[in-house]
Amino acid sequence: MYRTHTCGELNLQHKGTEVTLSGWVQRSRDHGGMTFIDLRDRYGITQLVFDLETDAALCGEARKLGREFVIKVVGLVRERSNKNPGISTGDIEIEVKSFKLLNASLLPPFTIEDRTDGGEELRMKFRYLDLRRNLMKRNLELRHRMAMEIRKYLDRQDFIEIETPVMIKSTPEGARDFIVPSRMNPGEFYALPQSPQIFKQLLMVGGYDKYFQIVKCFRDEDLRADRQPEFTQVDCEMSFAGQEDILNIFEGLVRHLFSEIKNTNFTGPFPRITFKDAMDRYGTDKPDIRFGMEIAEITEYTRGFGFAVFDNAEYVGSICAENCASFSRKQIDQLTDFVKRPQIGAKGLAYVKYNKDGTIKSSVDKFYDKDVIQKWIGLSGGRPGDLILILAGDRVATQEALSELRLEMERQLRLVKEDDFAPLWVVDFPLFEWDEETGRFYAKHHPFTSPRDEDIHLLDNDPVSVCANAYDLVINGVEIGGGSVRIHDKDLQKKMFEKLGFTDEQANEQFGFLMEAFRYGAPPHAGIAFGFDRWVAVFSGSDSIRDVIAFPKNNSGRDLMIDSPSALAPEQLKELGLSTDRNYD
Amino acid sequence: MYRTHTCGELNLQHKGTEVTLSGWVQRSRDHGGMTFIDLRDRYGITQLVFDLETDAALCGEARKLGREFVIKVVGLVRERSNKNPGISTGDIEIEVKSFKLLNASLLPPFTIEDRTDGGEELRMKFRYLDLRRNLMKRNLELRHRMAMEIRKYLDRQDFIEIETPVMIKSTPEGARDFIVPSRMNPGEFYALPQSPQIFKQLLMVGGYDKYFQIVKCFRDEDLRADRQPEFTQVDCEMSFAGQEDILNIFEGLVRHLFSEIKNTNFTGPFPRITFKDAMDRYGTDKPDIRFGMEIAEITEYTRGFGFAVFDNAEYVGSICAENCASFSRKQIDQLTDFVKRPQIGAKGLAYVKYNKDGTIKSSVDKFYDKDVIQKWIGLSGGRPGDLILILAGDRVATQEALSELRLEMERQLRLVKEDDFAPLWVVDFPLFEWDEETGRFYAKHHPFTSPRDEDIHLLDNDPVSVCANAYDLVINGVEIGGGSVRIHDKDLQKKMFEKLGFTDEQANEQFGFLMEAFRYGAPPHAGIAFGFDRWVAVFSGSDSIRDVIAFPKNNSGRDLMIDSPSALAPEQLKELGLSTDRNYD
Repeated sequence: MYRTHTCGELNLQHKGTEVTLSGWVQRSRDHGGMTFIDLRDRYGITQLVFDLETDAALCGEARKLGREFVIKVVGLVRERSNKNPGISTGDIEIEVKSFKLLNASLLPPFTIEDRTDGGEELRMKFRYLDLRRNLMKRNLELRHRMAMEIRKYLDRQDFIEIETPVMIKSTPEGARDFIVPSRMNPGEFYALPQSPQIFKQLLMVGGYDKYFQIVKCFRDEDLRADRQPEFTQVDCEMSFAGQEDILNIFEGLVRHLFSEIKNTNFTGPFPRITFKDAMDRYGTDKPDIRFGMEIAEITEYTRGFGFAVFDNAEYVGSICAENCASFSRKQIDQLTDFVKRPQIGAKGLAYVKYNKDGTIKSSVDKFYDKDVIQKWIGLSGGRPGDLILILAGDRVATQEALSELRLEMERQLRLVKEDDFAPLWVVDFPLFEWDEETGRFYAKHHPFTSPRDEDIHLLDNDPVSVCANAYDLVINGVEIGGGSVRIHDKDLQKKMFEKLGFTDEQANEQFGFLMEAFRYGAPPHAGIAFGFDRWVAVFSGSDSIRDVIAFPKNNSGRDLMIDSPSALAPEQLKELGLSTDRNYD
Repeated sequence: MYRTHTCGELNLQHKGTEVTLSGWVQRSRDHGGMTFIDLRDRYGITQLVFDLETDAALCGEARKLGREFVIKVVGLVRERSNKNPGISTGDIEIEVKSFKLLNASLLPPFTIEDRTDGGEELRMKFRYLDLRRNLMKRNLELRHRMAMEIRKYLDRQDFIEIETPVMIKSTPEGARDFIVPSRMNPGEFYALPQSPQIFKQLLMVGGYDKYFQIVKCFRDEDLRADRQPEFTQVDCEMSFAGQEDILNIFEGLVRHLFSEIKNTNFTGPFPRITFKDAMDRYGTDKPDIRFGMEIAEITEYTRGFGFAVFDNAEYVGSICAENCASFSRKQIDQLTDFVKRPQIGAKGLAYVKYNKDGTIKSSVDKFYDKDVIQKWIGLSGGRPGDLILILAGDRVATQEALSELRLEMERQLRLVKEDDFAPLWVVDFPLFEWDEETGRFYAKHHPFTSPRDEDIHLLDNDPVSVCANAYDLVINGVEIGGGSVRIHDKDLQKKMFEKLGFTDEQANEQFGFLMEAFRYGAPPHAGIAFGFDRWVAVFSGSDSIRDVIAFPKNNSGRDLMIDSPSALAPEQLKELGLSTDRNYD
């Protein structure tokens, strides 16, 4: 037997008990005749004591134990003279009678501490050591707890979890698929699912009116900081349900998790904001509403005063940074550089300093008199002491730049308290997005999203104005989930494919089975999917989803620990009837 | 709003209530002036009534509704005159006030009934219709319930579920991998995991002492009836645990599921049997112990009487079929044909009829006198009226053939009651298996399995005798789970790879990261994995795992519904730097 207790559970109640513990040597200290070892396992740390006087041989052996050695000890629980209130076992220590070395360890390439000295690449290569750190342990335990609570809530609401296949069929719409060659069907390929979308809709046709699944999905994209080629989704769908049903049930899920996991209970329903309002007020469809600093449009009060930049702009907008009128020239120059970065792309930044004493100083003083500027201040909600920041240009691009500027000001001013959470629903998304480059419409959400009933008549002549029955859940500026009411009528689905530029043949080849299924009594249905990695990251306070995934890949899609992907044995390719045009070496 | 209630919940307590229901038309009957429609959803069936006299127009519309049409109805709950005790809603019916057609349906290609007229291929092509059948609904609900209970039990035992990656690295050991070409790393490939084995061991090195995961695994095998290229495993691992800990914890899991799901509580611990005993007594390492008919070895009592077949056999064994002495010549001929089938491969079948009157009639009468035959009868446990069936040949092959014969006799005699369950542990498996064809040892379980401590000294000179710390859980003759204590010592692991014929280089290339991890304080650990599809099938009473998987593939690995795998667009292959030597057409 390796242990009677864990390293996290002993306290004064166990005083005098003989116990067996197993774990890792976290650290070791010699104090004169005594050696102290902190023994660590998943549950905590317990202090071991070896007394040179009582048992010199044992103490000598203990002094040979290095960091991360694995040992089993037998000893007596006793009260510490020097208590440590910082840990749950801080009142006791173990007077060791005997121990056994279970495994030795090389010196780890970085310290197993909260603030480790290891860089990310090194920690990824030795991920099994990185996983020993408290941060990772807390995050993975949180992830487990959240998954358990999601299942508990949905099960209680009569949802059933149904596994959909991982080896499916490639569909060129959307992002790039990862593919899997079939040996038994030469020349043919499976694809890994970007989401179980079509299968969950087929489950609705199959009568499973409340489905969910916590499921891996796959996208072969060029990776950005917060993307992984494989990621986890909480995928949900309901039949005989409309937008209001989905929002109610899943607001309940979000509340349940906040309550159970973060001990946070929200009063009143989550705010709802239309896509248009979100863009107008925050410049983004995933606003962080934990702080104000909303965008004001001042276009009409900037025209006709001879300032060409504003006169020629489609849109002029501002945000008001409280108590920042005292910003230095250098600070404002830095903000200007910030908005001119290619990722943001503004041409410049105008400002108005509304000083504490009521005077006004602006970068566009020479074009606008005080009354006009006072108007801008009024629209921006400025008070004496505030700084108004102004951008101009095309409407959407400028709103998006103002959003970035707003978030940057929050970072500088630290307006948001840690562990403050502000969920909201964004609704009434447009159904289509026009793509200049390819000269065609794309589905803003996906091609199965239903237009609002009242907008269907606009599909032919004014598609840009058609709103979708689609919705996103946003928490703290992070899009946590999104979904829509689906089309369940084969004719409307056909029309949607037409609008998206599919030929009948293409639609049939890729989604023929779904269109066919719609001919056999498809019920009205709607759904939502949550990005589980991101949700856990938001709850854990992590910046990166890599901190909440046990074995993530890096930005080149590589697993540095197992060194994957890798070359295959030539026989494997041969058996699949494949050849690669790259040389192995 | 689509519904106030489901089609499974209304009863006399709702009498007089106005309700809204949505669902599918299961069937429709006209009785004179009345039309009755059975409305179906996931929860049950509710009878709708339309009265020609009260509302001729409505009744006329209702008569146009075909099978599987989707409707929403509003009506009044009233007591039925003609109650149906067979269904939960059998006391009431709905007097329909109005209804709305939500979607029409073509006539389904097979009936949506428990005993459908659809063949398997047709049902797979229209799986979304097959899923509407009660059998599939019960099985998928059972599957969900079992997954929930597994998670509940393991969570209570402090296990945490951790997701391991789906895109990993190909390792030629074991079955064939499915592979995934990497676009970002040209010429390189990921593989889909055959199991999370290595990752769960790395989690143990990482300090997560109680891990589990309900997870998809993948094997590119030539498919047999009960195999799927993707299947689901309940994957578990513990640190600081030996065989006894695993058997205790997971016997608890199995008991929990039997108790919660099947309302079956076993008294006393599950039986344990060694691999050797299982082979000797049942001819298989997954014995069905719900009935006796154990194998008896009679080799030594068959030699030296001049019957060459027995004299030359390594092994002669028998089973005793109770009350079958009256079997006809034809029945015995059929059994002979059965054991001579190539899958079983026996050369012939000898028998002894121990008649009710005490007389004996045997197919080998002329070689053996009554005393000798009486000895066989005694060893086989025969009583007057029984039939002794005897096979001879090589030991293992003959035991296996006797096992098949034993199962065939059970099928003929129906010795087992439905819903009778007999779980047991099989232990003390050999560590190695010798493969004649390749002339090398293979790991009976897998290369990470630890030999028993007391057998380690045999590794070099007598590897065949080395027993592994490995165990299987068997229920009703089906292997439901298996696992082992793992090697955690790098030197022993290295030795194991040597014994399995790996060069240092191969071992390093494929498992270098695991060997490396073992150098940094790997704890003793052990684990088990359950075949979830099979477990659900056993609990559901299904013969095939296809009946407990929502969207299974057929024996050629094809999904007939979505027609996958399929050819790719040439650009997709080009982007991956791949070409296939098969022609598309």
